[in-house]
Amino acid sequence: MENKYTNFAGDNLDNFLGHEMIEIKEDYVESKLVVTKDHKQPMGLVHGGIYSTLAETICSYGANFSGEGVFVGVNNNTDFLSSVTDGEIICKAEPIKKGKSFQLWECNISHNDKLVAVSKVRLSRIQ
Amino acid sequence: MENKYTNFAGDNLDNFLGHEMIEIKEDYVESKLVVTKDHKQPMGLVHGGIYSTLAETICSYGANFSGEGVFVGVNNNTDFLSSVTDGEIICKAEPIKKGKSFQLWECNISHNDKLVAVSKVRLSRIQ
Amino acid sequence: MENKYTNFAGDNLDNFLGHEMIEIKEDYVESKLVVTKDHKQPMGLVHGGIYSTLAETICSYGANFSGEGVFVGVNNNTDFLSSVTDGEIICKAEPIKKGKSFQLWECNISHNDKLVAVSKVRLSRIQ
Amino acid sequence: MENKYTNFAGDNLDNFLGHEMIEIKEDYVESKLVVTKDHKQPMGLVHGGIYSTLAETICSYGANFSGEGVFVGVNNNTDFLSSVTDGEIICKAEPIKKGKSFQLWECNISHNDKLVAVSKVRLSRIQ
Repeated sequence: MENKYTNFAGDNLDNFLGHEMIEIKEDYVESKLVVTKDHKQPMGLVHGGIYSTLAETICSYGANFSGEGVFVGVNNNTDFLSSVTDGEIICKAEPIKKGKSFQLWECNISHNDKLVAVSKVRLSRIQ
Repeated sequence: MENKYTNFAGDNLDNFLGHEMIEIKEDYVESKLVVTKDHKQPMGLVHGGIYSTLAETICSYGANFSGEGVFVGVNNNTDFLSSVTDGEIICKAEPIKKGKSFQLWECNISHNDKLVAVSKVRLSRIQ
Repeated sequence: MENKYTNFAGDNLDNFLGHEMIEIKEDYVESKLVVTKDHKQPMGLVHGGIYSTLAETICSYGANFSGEGVFVGVNNNTDFLSSVTDGEIICKAEPIKKGKSFQLWECNISHNDKLVAVSKVRLSRIQ
Repeated sequence: MENKYTNFAGDNLDNFLGHEMIEIKEDYVESKLVVTKDHKQPMGLVHGGIYSTLAETICSYGANFSGEGVFVGVNNNTDFLSSVTDGEIICKAEPIKKGKSFQLWECNISHNDKLVAVSKVRLSRIQ
């Protein structure tokens, strides 16, 4: 896999949370998370920050997968549409625009084929 | 503490991440996170999703601390201003508007007294 | 046309700007704006607020076109992707989620078939 | 006034809408709009796009007022808190961060001393 990110297999938030990549290719990233008690807020629902995190990760992976430059997220805007308490969350990210100095990606997050969160992640080139 | 949230001490994302409340009172919540390897993305920087998560939590805590109703986050918009690799992150949240059916809170996140992320969290009343 | 909005033809911002509806149906709204000097910022580019305004309008029209309730915009998040100096701007809006108490719509704005802005508009039911 | 913007007095959206600058200085811009029928949506309320536009303008003015570079808005995120039907709208903008390649500004918009909208505008350096 051609990607400027390193340490996929090592210590990082995604491994800590159990966030698993399913597919990373040009202009498309897909991943999943099997919900556990550690992903929830005190009411027992999956914490909103989990959706923001999943989106941030796979948009960043996509932005850095190919092409020139290293990109980091500068804004994450996530809407939470429905609550989830268990099962598997699927994330799919695609670029809205890939510019030289910035990229804008969107991520759709679903649970049992129902859309539960949508996210836009803006990334800026740092190298 | 008067708060409709429960299970603060039990299994949840904040405990899993090590997110510690410092102060929760009406119209103000403060918290901290001591950065570990588990909070980072593959480049070694604190993952953007961490800032979104911290903001989501303390804005939710604030929105549910007093008054009528139960509120859940429906949108989280976080800007990442500077990168952090270690040390302690401090979060401070205050309401922008507390309406009957929704609340809008903002959260400023700093590291060594430097602002590193800002977030707006919109919450909607569900009960 | 079944729509709870009134005064389409009278005094309002859209008529003032020259924003023309092309199609309003369930789950889809399309409109256009022919750029004039009055739509620009001092550098000669179409003002970002124009894209936000176009999106706000057609997402509101779509949200109020059918079904129960009256919805008003509570958040408008617009990304500007490319600059425009003249010609015709085309806007297309579709719902991401239509709930009982809120709706979330997205609007894609293009110029000569190139995407120049994207917007998400959240609407809350007030009646 | 030291500002890279030109054509303040000529044809542009702000003059067309009647948006008047009150004060532009380093790290602070203040402006006002006297509401007319041309600023409204069909229900008779000030159109959400007006708040987005006012914020976009004064944050852009602030970002370009001093220092190096020319900055243009790339994202406008505006929350509408209360409706307005007439009178005078006051806008106040301040920077959250002024970086070399981007700036993030916030704008608070009030009516009769009540906060009616808040906005964050991200600007990217183009020259």
